[in-house]
Amino acid sequence: MTDTKPDSQKPDPDNVSNADGDRGPTEAETLESIARFEGPGLSGDFVELVEQALYDENQQRLDVLLSALDPEDIADLLGFISVGDRRQVLAVLDRDALGEVLPELDEGVREEVLALVEPRQIAEVIEDLESDDAALLVEDLGSAQRAEVLAAVDPEERAVIESALGYEEDSVGRMMRREIFAAPDFWTVGQVIDHMREHGEELPEKFYEIYVVDPKLHPIGAVSADQILRKPRATPLSAILEEDAQVVSVNTPEADVAYIFEKYHLFAAGVVDEDGRLVGQITVDDVLDVMQEQNRRSALSMAGVTGSGRNVSILGTTRSRFWWLLVNLFTAVLSAWVISWFEDDIARIAILAALAPVVASMGGNAGAQTMTVVVRALATKELTSANTWRTLGRETTVGVINGIMFAALTAAVVILWRHDTRLAFVIAVAMVANHIAAAVAGAIIPIGLSRAKVDPAVSSTVFVTTVTDIVGFFAFLALASLMLL
Amino acid sequence: MTDTKPDSQKPDPDNVSNADGDRGPTEAETLESIARFEGPGLSGDFVELVEQALYDENQQRLDVLLSALDPEDIADLLGFISVGDRRQVLAVLDRDALGEVLPELDEGVREEVLALVEPRQIAEVIEDLESDDAALLVEDLGSAQRAEVLAAVDPEERAVIESALGYEEDSVGRMMRREIFAAPDFWTVGQVIDHMREHGEELPEKFYEIYVVDPKLHPIGAVSADQILRKPRATPLSAILEEDAQVVSVNTPEADVAYIFEKYHLFAAGVVDEDGRLVGQITVDDVLDVMQEQNRRSALSMAGVTGSGRNVSILGTTRSRFWWLLVNLFTAVLSAWVISWFEDDIARIAILAALAPVVASMGGNAGAQTMTVVVRALATKELTSANTWRTLGRETTVGVINGIMFAALTAAVVILWRHDTRLAFVIAVAMVANHIAAAVAGAIIPIGLSRAKVDPAVSSTVFVTTVTDIVGFFAFLALASLMLL
Repeated sequence: MTDTKPDSQKPDPDNVSNADGDRGPTEAETLESIARFEGPGLSGDFVELVEQALYDENQQRLDVLLSALDPEDIADLLGFISVGDRRQVLAVLDRDALGEVLPELDEGVREEVLALVEPRQIAEVIEDLESDDAALLVEDLGSAQRAEVLAAVDPEERAVIESALGYEEDSVGRMMRREIFAAPDFWTVGQVIDHMREHGEELPEKFYEIYVVDPKLHPIGAVSADQILRKPRATPLSAILEEDAQVVSVNTPEADVAYIFEKYHLFAAGVVDEDGRLVGQITVDDVLDVMQEQNRRSALSMAGVTGSGRNVSILGTTRSRFWWLLVNLFTAVLSAWVISWFEDDIARIAILAALAPVVASMGGNAGAQTMTVVVRALATKELTSANTWRTLGRETTVGVINGIMFAALTAAVVILWRHDTRLAFVIAVAMVANHIAAAVAGAIIPIGLSRAKVDPAVSSTVFVTTVTDIVGFFAFLALASLMLL
Repeated sequence: MTDTKPDSQKPDPDNVSNADGDRGPTEAETLESIARFEGPGLSGDFVELVEQALYDENQQRLDVLLSALDPEDIADLLGFISVGDRRQVLAVLDRDALGEVLPELDEGVREEVLALVEPRQIAEVIEDLESDDAALLVEDLGSAQRAEVLAAVDPEERAVIESALGYEEDSVGRMMRREIFAAPDFWTVGQVIDHMREHGEELPEKFYEIYVVDPKLHPIGAVSADQILRKPRATPLSAILEEDAQVVSVNTPEADVAYIFEKYHLFAAGVVDEDGRLVGQITVDDVLDVMQEQNRRSALSMAGVTGSGRNVSILGTTRSRFWWLLVNLFTAVLSAWVISWFEDDIARIAILAALAPVVASMGGNAGAQTMTVVVRALATKELTSANTWRTLGRETTVGVINGIMFAALTAAVVILWRHDTRLAFVIAVAMVANHIAAAVAGAIIPIGLSRAKVDPAVSSTVFVTTVTDIVGFFAFLALASLMLL
């Protein structure tokens, strides 16, 4: 009982016939241990075995190797290998395996992999999936392929998918599962159990709570599966339902859903449409994915990387990073222009050219610290209008204290190095000024962007660095020009 | 059915007696709508109301206000307000409310808040909590307070907490819940249901799956609550248990648990001790917390912020950021020293001083892009030994392409600005060189640190920036010195 592995992926003795006959299962176990060699992820050694089989075009061996893997590992594997190799792997997967692998792929990889699969095959797979996974796949299809796939699935399934795609990207309507178990409040525990025993097949594959609804399908509460198990058969649902159960609207942004699930420790939440009718549910496993995707985007976007960052073509990656670098070139040239105002001073005291970047760089780092804390606090809703001023005051105080300490340290370095106390004084004053600018800009810029509904994770870095560069260079060089020349 | 709110926090008509009598409930509703004004988090307007009541020392009003909040909001509130105000809020909370609020506090805040609560009160609260929350609280107590609290709880509870604290921080042993429902495999669905109906009170408050164990308490599978509901009473557990259910060891690091839950879409997983005996379970709501904490740490540590970043004293914050800035001062001085080698050249062509930072800054930004992508991919196990070389090649290619483009652009700027083609050529060559250095350093440094078991999120930035600064300054100035003088 250690690995989750659906039966379709279980090592099949027939497939290991190329190994030495009756020792087949041993090979399967060996393969599994190779796959897990580096921890819960797929090991590099195993990927090498697969790549060897692909290179040899040994389909039988490939089949044996893939049989040792979970669908989740096969999805990872598809991310690691080249497009040509992906075709070979896909050819080995049967319909069930494909249905388990496709929803597990990373966003960027999924688009590329789906382009390699026949629309008819995708349509077959989709009919086996739950509504949220089905919508996920269709979302990632090219428009021509999407039309073909939708034409091939049955009309009911198609209507469900099209309605999901009608909701905004990153909203609950897109991610919810339409399969729910709803019951009227006059039902008893016994009726629920009988219903489940009779209609178990039609009910959602897995669920955590039963939604209790009124005749108009408006939710009036939820009962968790374990509560049903604890109560006598005659207990009416109305007596045990949790009235305060969280319900989200189809239009709720994904980010708010993640926040609500984390805050209230939810496993599932009902979803209502604009008229307040129960139309689906969100489960925590999907929220986990949303959360990781948000964290990924936010981490990458602070460094000016858009998209998934990996698993996109080299040209696509180059292009996505180009724009950020272009903005940075603009601000770097701006700083160069500020420095050029002091060309005559630098020609006379060239060491200014070596020291000015120290002031700018320390401000940049201090600003990045404040900015990162503030961006993170905004994302997790720890920073609200309730504590904006306190945060600003706090960051400025930290900036002043660290500014003074680094002013002293840098001045000491300059005195030891250049034996010039006036130069040391100039750099110390510029350092304090830039640390304060860094703290204020690092806090105000993301807060301001967030109020203006611009994602602070994406845009803050450029603005903050521009401020600390320009203040740093200008404060130091202007002061030097006044005091030393 | 919109807000999860335990009964103890429900607005109590007696508490609103200071409002105009029978219109009490209306005030409670008004307060709730003010609290939710800005979305699912606690609104700034509401915090202001609380601060007014605190300022007035109006305990009755405070009581009314807090009654409109969930324990989760009260926890947030405690994070927003000063230590003196926290005392007032804590004084209003009864034992039940305190038990619900304390586990919800942010790590940094919890330490500070616990220091304000009597050890006897904490001991009372702990006896009501599940084992994981109890351990969480004791973990955050000062050592003197911890001894007092442990002395006051009953010996059985104390043994459980002490055993949890015996496991390494950030391991499963610390975070697991000891309350589980385990059953032998010869039990039937009917027996499980009867047991639950009779002993519902003693079983875990909420659970998603039942663990099936052998006589030595070794897990042999799990059955989800909804599976029990679907099957006839006579079905033995052995017929419906999922043998492949994931089990984690007490020594598994938190990060691996988060990875496993996300990968396999788990709601819960059994925990076994070193002898393979089932000793507890991990549920997905705890994993969500772990994941957010990891993401927070990783985002902050890339900018050199350690600890929680907020909610620590100003002096603590200043100190935690000081060391990072000190390392940066060292690398900045190193760059200054490299620049100073070319003092004579700069004295003759002062514009070099303005342009050198452009080369360094562009390299720094390109390096940060690569580094962030690589750090993120390492954290999510998307980058393994299986695709290290491919990633390195890919990043270098992107670096070369963007390097050439920005070399051309910067050269154009220099020609337009200074009408100097030789200077333009020098900056173009330096730019390409630094982009390549940035790509290689941005990929190799985090991979190398990760292989050396050093957290790449913490240390990569310094090394990468040092490389791009030194390569940038040196390549540009040395080439200028050779070609222009």
